[in-house]
Amino acid sequence: MAVFAPKSDLRKRLLLYVIVDRAFSGGRGEEEVVAAAARGGATAVQLRSKELTARQLYLTGLSLRTLTRQMGLLFIVNDRVDVALAVDADGVHLGQDDLPLEAARRLMGRRRIIGMSVDTVEEAERAQRGGADYLGAGPVFATPSKADAGPVMGPEGLREICRAVRIPVVGIGGIGARNARQVMEAGAAGVAVISAVVSAPDVTAAARALRSALV
Amino acid sequence: MAVFAPKSDLRKRLLLYVIVDRAFSGGRGEEEVVAAAARGGATAVQLRSKELTARQLYLTGLSLRTLTRQMGLLFIVNDRVDVALAVDADGVHLGQDDLPLEAARRLMGRRRIIGMSVDTVEEAERAQRGGADYLGAGPVFATPSKADAGPVMGPEGLREICRAVRIPVVGIGGIGARNARQVMEAGAAGVAVISAVVSAPDVTAAARALRSALV
Repeated sequence: MAVFAPKSDLRKRLLLYVIVDRAFSGGRGEEEVVAAAARGGATAVQLRSKELTARQLYLTGLSLRTLTRQMGLLFIVNDRVDVALAVDADGVHLGQDDLPLEAARRLMGRRRIIGMSVDTVEEAERAQRGGADYLGAGPVFATPSKADAGPVMGPEGLREICRAVRIPVVGIGGIGARNARQVMEAGAAGVAVISAVVSAPDVTAAARALRSALV
Repeated sequence: MAVFAPKSDLRKRLLLYVIVDRAFSGGRGEEEVVAAAARGGATAVQLRSKELTARQLYLTGLSLRTLTRQMGLLFIVNDRVDVALAVDADGVHLGQDDLPLEAARRLMGRRRIIGMSVDTVEEAERAQRGGADYLGAGPVFATPSKADAGPVMGPEGLREICRAVRIPVVGIGGIGARNARQVMEAGAAGVAVISAVVSAPDVTAAARALRSALV
């Protein structure tokens, strides 16, 4: 096992960022989905669930931590700083409604990754100033996965955000193999996907198709 | 301001434990309710809300932290270890679906308080072994505040739990001025209430009536 250094090569490790959420995986367990996505070339995994209790999130997180370490993937927990720390995740991903970045940083320390969802250039600049390590920006395209997402920004909106900050930006929202290249051409370090991979009948094939579109 | 020592006199400080939850306070803000309850003799406050975002919980927690310090109350955050740490609460209260006690203790350290909800003698003994500092046991009486609570244990069930452990036990569920003495006579260190105080038109008077019934 490599020495634990979550932030080394962060930009590269954000290339294909798969968000696992039980609500979109058709009843398949997180471990099964993550292992299949990793075989298809996923480089990072985020565990997200509004449906799981904190205890279930912790237990799932522990097993994803083991799996992602074995398979060499970055492992991020959504929202819950406490769960991220308890399972020794590489980082946490925060939305604008979660703990403020500064409070999360005090708990997470400098060594771990904090990602932040942003909708606008202003939010992106503020998150960079606040010490975020990477940004998730979107929705780039229309998406069925997140009903509360803001208006579609398109590749042009994403490009503005990528130009405004030095930290890596991952595009999210409605991204699949057919449009992933547009996201990279806008300056993103990678693409974040939920349903395009997690809802696919063949998760490995879906991840592989996306990965091929990125390189 | 006293030196920060959350666990000193813990048993005494659990005497009148008011849980503030916006769902039960008729639209009144947490700060208003806590200040009023403190004037009536509340000794401990727990901030609980399934409706608030983590950011709102954090911001409310910060202001309750200031207020409870000024007024000399113990301050506990429900469920979220990260929020409890971020606002420098005295402790966290965990249910059986929250982070496991051992994981929470690693994050909270020895100095802060961890309370645990228990329904049975077995859960109480397990929580004590796991290092809980106090227990919340109930529902002692039938309660409208928590639809997912287990069967009513009555003062006799509470007594069994109090006898089984050395750490202080707070009774919860359907407790008011009329039956609070039964809870104390069963061996509890205090009573935890939501609606009996938080939903009262006059929060201070409701707290005072309860407090009088306890001493």
